[in-house]
Amino acid sequence: MRKILFALMLLPMLAMAQTVKSPNGNVSVKFSLDNGRPVYEVSYKKRAVVKPSYLGLELAKTKHASKGMEETSLMDGFVVAKTDTSTFDETWKPVWGETATIRNHYNELAVTLNQPATKRNIVIRFRVYDDGMGLRYEFPQQEELNYFVIKEEHTQFAMAGDHKAFWIPGDYDTQEYETVESKLSEIRGLMKSAITPNSSQTTFSPTGVQTSLQMKTDDGLYINIHEAACVNYATMHLNLDDKNMVFESWLTPDAQGYKGYIQTPFNTPWRTVIVSDDARDMLSSNLILNLNEPCALDDVSWIRPIKYCGVWWDMIVGRGTWSYTNDLPSVHLGVTDYSKCKPNGTHSANNENVKKYIDFAADNGLDEVLVEGWNEGWEDWFGHSKLDVFDFITPYPDFDIKMLNEYAHSKGVKLMMHHETSSSAWNYERWMEKAYELMNKYGYDAVKSGYVGDIIPRGEYHYGQLMNNHYLRAVKEAAKHHIMVNAHEATRPTGLCRTYPNLVGNESARGTEYEAFGGSRPDHTVVLPFTRLQGGPMDYTPGILETQLNTWSENTSFVHTTLVGQLSLYLVMYSPLQMAADLPENYMKYYDAFQFIRDVAVDWDDSKYLEAEPGDYITVARKAKGTDNWFVGGKCDENGHKAVVKLDFLDKGRKYDCTIYADAKDAHYEKNPKAYEITHKIVKKGDVLKLQEAPGGGFAVSLIAQ
Amino acid sequence: MRKILFALMLLPMLAMAQTVKSPNGNVSVKFSLDNGRPVYEVSYKKRAVVKPSYLGLELAKTKHASKGMEETSLMDGFVVAKTDTSTFDETWKPVWGETATIRNHYNELAVTLNQPATKRNIVIRFRVYDDGMGLRYEFPQQEELNYFVIKEEHTQFAMAGDHKAFWIPGDYDTQEYETVESKLSEIRGLMKSAITPNSSQTTFSPTGVQTSLQMKTDDGLYINIHEAACVNYATMHLNLDDKNMVFESWLTPDAQGYKGYIQTPFNTPWRTVIVSDDARDMLSSNLILNLNEPCALDDVSWIRPIKYCGVWWDMIVGRGTWSYTNDLPSVHLGVTDYSKCKPNGTHSANNENVKKYIDFAADNGLDEVLVEGWNEGWEDWFGHSKLDVFDFITPYPDFDIKMLNEYAHSKGVKLMMHHETSSSAWNYERWMEKAYELMNKYGYDAVKSGYVGDIIPRGEYHYGQLMNNHYLRAVKEAAKHHIMVNAHEATRPTGLCRTYPNLVGNESARGTEYEAFGGSRPDHTVVLPFTRLQGGPMDYTPGILETQLNTWSENTSFVHTTLVGQLSLYLVMYSPLQMAADLPENYMKYYDAFQFIRDVAVDWDDSKYLEAEPGDYITVARKAKGTDNWFVGGKCDENGHKAVVKLDFLDKGRKYDCTIYADAKDAHYEKNPKAYEITHKIVKKGDVLKLQEAPGGGFAVSLIAQ
Repeated sequence: MRKILFALMLLPMLAMAQTVKSPNGNVSVKFSLDNGRPVYEVSYKKRAVVKPSYLGLELAKTKHASKGMEETSLMDGFVVAKTDTSTFDETWKPVWGETATIRNHYNELAVTLNQPATKRNIVIRFRVYDDGMGLRYEFPQQEELNYFVIKEEHTQFAMAGDHKAFWIPGDYDTQEYETVESKLSEIRGLMKSAITPNSSQTTFSPTGVQTSLQMKTDDGLYINIHEAACVNYATMHLNLDDKNMVFESWLTPDAQGYKGYIQTPFNTPWRTVIVSDDARDMLSSNLILNLNEPCALDDVSWIRPIKYCGVWWDMIVGRGTWSYTNDLPSVHLGVTDYSKCKPNGTHSANNENVKKYIDFAADNGLDEVLVEGWNEGWEDWFGHSKLDVFDFITPYPDFDIKMLNEYAHSKGVKLMMHHETSSSAWNYERWMEKAYELMNKYGYDAVKSGYVGDIIPRGEYHYGQLMNNHYLRAVKEAAKHHIMVNAHEATRPTGLCRTYPNLVGNESARGTEYEAFGGSRPDHTVVLPFTRLQGGPMDYTPGILETQLNTWSENTSFVHTTLVGQLSLYLVMYSPLQMAADLPENYMKYYDAFQFIRDVAVDWDDSKYLEAEPGDYITVARKAKGTDNWFVGGKCDENGHKAVVKLDFLDKGRKYDCTIYADAKDAHYEKNPKAYEITHKIVKKGDVLKLQEAPGGGFAVSLIAQ
Repeated sequence: MRKILFALMLLPMLAMAQTVKSPNGNVSVKFSLDNGRPVYEVSYKKRAVVKPSYLGLELAKTKHASKGMEETSLMDGFVVAKTDTSTFDETWKPVWGETATIRNHYNELAVTLNQPATKRNIVIRFRVYDDGMGLRYEFPQQEELNYFVIKEEHTQFAMAGDHKAFWIPGDYDTQEYETVESKLSEIRGLMKSAITPNSSQTTFSPTGVQTSLQMKTDDGLYINIHEAACVNYATMHLNLDDKNMVFESWLTPDAQGYKGYIQTPFNTPWRTVIVSDDARDMLSSNLILNLNEPCALDDVSWIRPIKYCGVWWDMIVGRGTWSYTNDLPSVHLGVTDYSKCKPNGTHSANNENVKKYIDFAADNGLDEVLVEGWNEGWEDWFGHSKLDVFDFITPYPDFDIKMLNEYAHSKGVKLMMHHETSSSAWNYERWMEKAYELMNKYGYDAVKSGYVGDIIPRGEYHYGQLMNNHYLRAVKEAAKHHIMVNAHEATRPTGLCRTYPNLVGNESARGTEYEAFGGSRPDHTVVLPFTRLQGGPMDYTPGILETQLNTWSENTSFVHTTLVGQLSLYLVMYSPLQMAADLPENYMKYYDAFQFIRDVAVDWDDSKYLEAEPGDYITVARKAKGTDNWFVGGKCDENGHKAVVKLDFLDKGRKYDCTIYADAKDAHYEKNPKAYEITHKIVKKGDVLKLQEAPGGGFAVSLIAQ
């Protein structure tokens, strides 16, 4: 320590600001100390993105902190011990994704700070990309900082104005809110009405919001705040000081109110700011993935994108049921004898119905069939905080797990497993090994998991440190079994799918099911790619072509997009998992439109965002992996949109069979949703397509190389 | 429901009091309703034991209670729907115990109560024995009572006077307090000084105490309050209204403050009152075991009592260490490379030392050798609330698990496994299956587990519903692996060892280790059999013959009994697990005295409590299972005691080699603890032994049939 202080005296310039710029010089990050308090700022093309903002952490005084931890502040009292700069430029291949390769090119600044009063060292590391930056705190292993407990992290993001923001209420337990589009100053007034009911929700501040947060400044700058590589740490929300327009990190607490238990050496997640004057860069950015660790799995041959259908929508809409019988007010797993119960006649996951879905998948080139409600326990699974709620291995009497898997395999199709945990994580961890072994036994390679309801251990939250630890454990254990994981209601992703590419999906936002619960706004899916899709794909489960649920059920809700709008989602909502979520019989009704879903790829060599404006429209073209084929999709809000698509990305000298799925001229998501037109023509590079998207509509185009 | 109300109108006498007596008529229990509130009282030979006391439960209004649960009270508004009486008389054989057979003989009253306002039914069941009674609440499965959450249970025990009580502070996390002997009215004033420091403790009331609670009335009645068969329920403490001398149940809360999550049908644990005018009946009572379910295991052939020594005292006293190295400020399991660390030279669980203990065990007829500190992780295991603290499967570099087990087995000895969980139950459940499999692989059949420190999931308590669920799961899973469990720091037992006889021990009170931490009072072990030993044996780990720790260590503490007092504990503190806890070299120093430990049995066909007074003295004779041999032990407090032992339990016409281990005339637990005399003589039935026990001393006698 003495050496460093001596060096400090000799080199006073170290206390001055440090600047690091992106490779192309557009993004600039400056670090300095303000009376011992760490400060950073971010600019883009010399415009302020993050004004000078403080960094630091407040530690908790607990008996569990290491001896001598009386000083609980990592907020100030720092001097710069040293700084290191470096450059990194590497191109890597994701196992699945929007593009075949991704370039990871940044300039880095690592500032080692020493706190003389406590002799502690921390490092703040900045990585600056052409489209933004990430910063994180690092705590080297040292005697003076061995174990500590976080009271709160105080990472600030001072905004340069009263920006327009696309936000959802900050909540420890759910992300299933409709996005609110408003100025930052309006958040407080709109918060109450934004908090719509959910089976598990815990808001914490009248100006608290979740990430990723998408903003647009008055002078046309797009700014997105999120985090990357959240491992063994609590999820970060943003709390707005709406006097000064300063966001500050607000971590998800544990059952006692502490924000994290840390053992050094440790790195916090990256706090990320993506910035551009071009909205498309928000969607094409790979900053979050690039900040994550490379793939940790030696063998990834068993990981593959999946197009699937499933026994699910039937129950969501309310015609079928997950449960097998109506006889039972409650279930005691292992004791309740289902063979003695009267089948309710509405249990969708029965042998005959599942075979129907398998046939449909086989006939239409779908890879898998999800089956929800296959296992004992659905009669009382919800709302009781039941500990021993499912065992994940015992099928209902009318679900022959052996026969159905064999039947599926004989047709080149797999079943997709379903593990609804009912948020009893304590229980799920007890059964996890046996549950994964059962999957291996019957040839399942993918599981959709769910965390509906309040967490057990009771008092914990969905996005706390303990549950984040649990979700990642489920993924790592699954990888040992060559199982892919699609975790619903878990924490919104932070790019961990780079490190664990068997994490093929999360829900972690308001999905298609809400179309059956009253609907989502028509602009919902031209917001989500800017917000939710940072950090990882969403299993949005699109493809509801029969938008009027009352044509086949008692449900009076309707899908708030046109039929064609649903087709566009296979492009606009990127995901390696894509569900054809409607009932087979509905697809038969619109079989010509369904052809697009049959044709569209789920994995890509290249993606080009042609135009985008958050909450208004997105138009994107993608090249199907390992082919010369392209698919183009466009989606818009309630105002409609005219898309002009220049086919300049096609190969020169080549012809393409072009099929256009378009809203009819008078289509409208509410008044005339299922009016559509399908046009065929031959196109070539340089041709231009002009597509009129209806209100709440879109378009979908397949371009098959001849 | 209508039928029942109609019956009620016809039979008004049902609302009158119901009385049920014990088979011999001594104990009488009366039940009635006081304006719809359930009331019970207990008398013994017509003397009040429990004055009229209310029963009932208060439910919590939470979203997780079933629909329609607005009425949260199960306290009043009851009518008697029906009553059933019955008799039961059966003799059963415990797998191990103080006697070969146990008679379960009681009269029972089951009162079905209906709450017309809510249409709910509950049952209160009383079982009345010659030595006391148990009562429990039963909640039949019904639509009006499906899932509920307990706010608090309100079972009262109104005492008939300001009795003398032997109590420890009520605490959600520890029982390791010295017992306080005082009047009930003095509890409040003595509570503060009674709460001595512990690594995990949570007191809750200035008049809250734990069970079992032993009392003695001014007119010589002994009363003990405890519980039996605590399954999937929170542990009960007693909170005293010291104005009226009424105890009321106070359950251990969860992290949110709720007291239990219940799914019907469900039975609470039995709340028990043992009563007699003869103190010996407190010790010989089988009421708690009798109220438990019969053995649930089909095969019990693998369960056996164990006499063992261990690599343990060395570290407790502070000469050796659990840890392997002093290089590491912290450990990352699976990452930290111990082969690169410098051994600290004090790690007791090393190959050479363990072999020494194995040799000692083999030479002296001990069954097993406990080894603590065999596994990676001890360098930072304590006080950090560390989640991934142990993996229970990775040995230190100097503990060759394969070689040592083979060596032990070659000498007819087993090693005893050690699973210190550091209270990270979340982590222990993750590793449990692998940990038990490792035990099977290397031939371990018994594990000592520990829960030192604050529980993870953080916010939960050692004695809450979730942890009680965990402890029992550990026992049940162990049974599948033919593993016996000795759980330290877990909840004090409630007789579950009848149902799961592989639960061979708990600590769950202040054990011998405290003799190295300053000592326990000399009367400690003549209190514990009255208090802690109700409900199950204690792994007290006695046998510290070298009572002066500073003769071989830097530790200035000393054992607060005489050497001979330590020998008596093998009789006075019944347990199927008995440790010869001292170092082999200390036993070699007192090898003639150690002979008693070599000879004494650990399983019994018969036990006779010859004399007893809580806190003063206990004298007991036991017949070794499957033999004609008897062993007699006596222990006393700081006042000394003259024991007169009539050998009228010996077989007529038979001679016995009698060896008497006695305190020397001038022995004293503090001033002259190791002065002892060993006498040999031949005795027969009817002979009388007169034994002077020194202050804090005792005696031990072996009677080997010729």
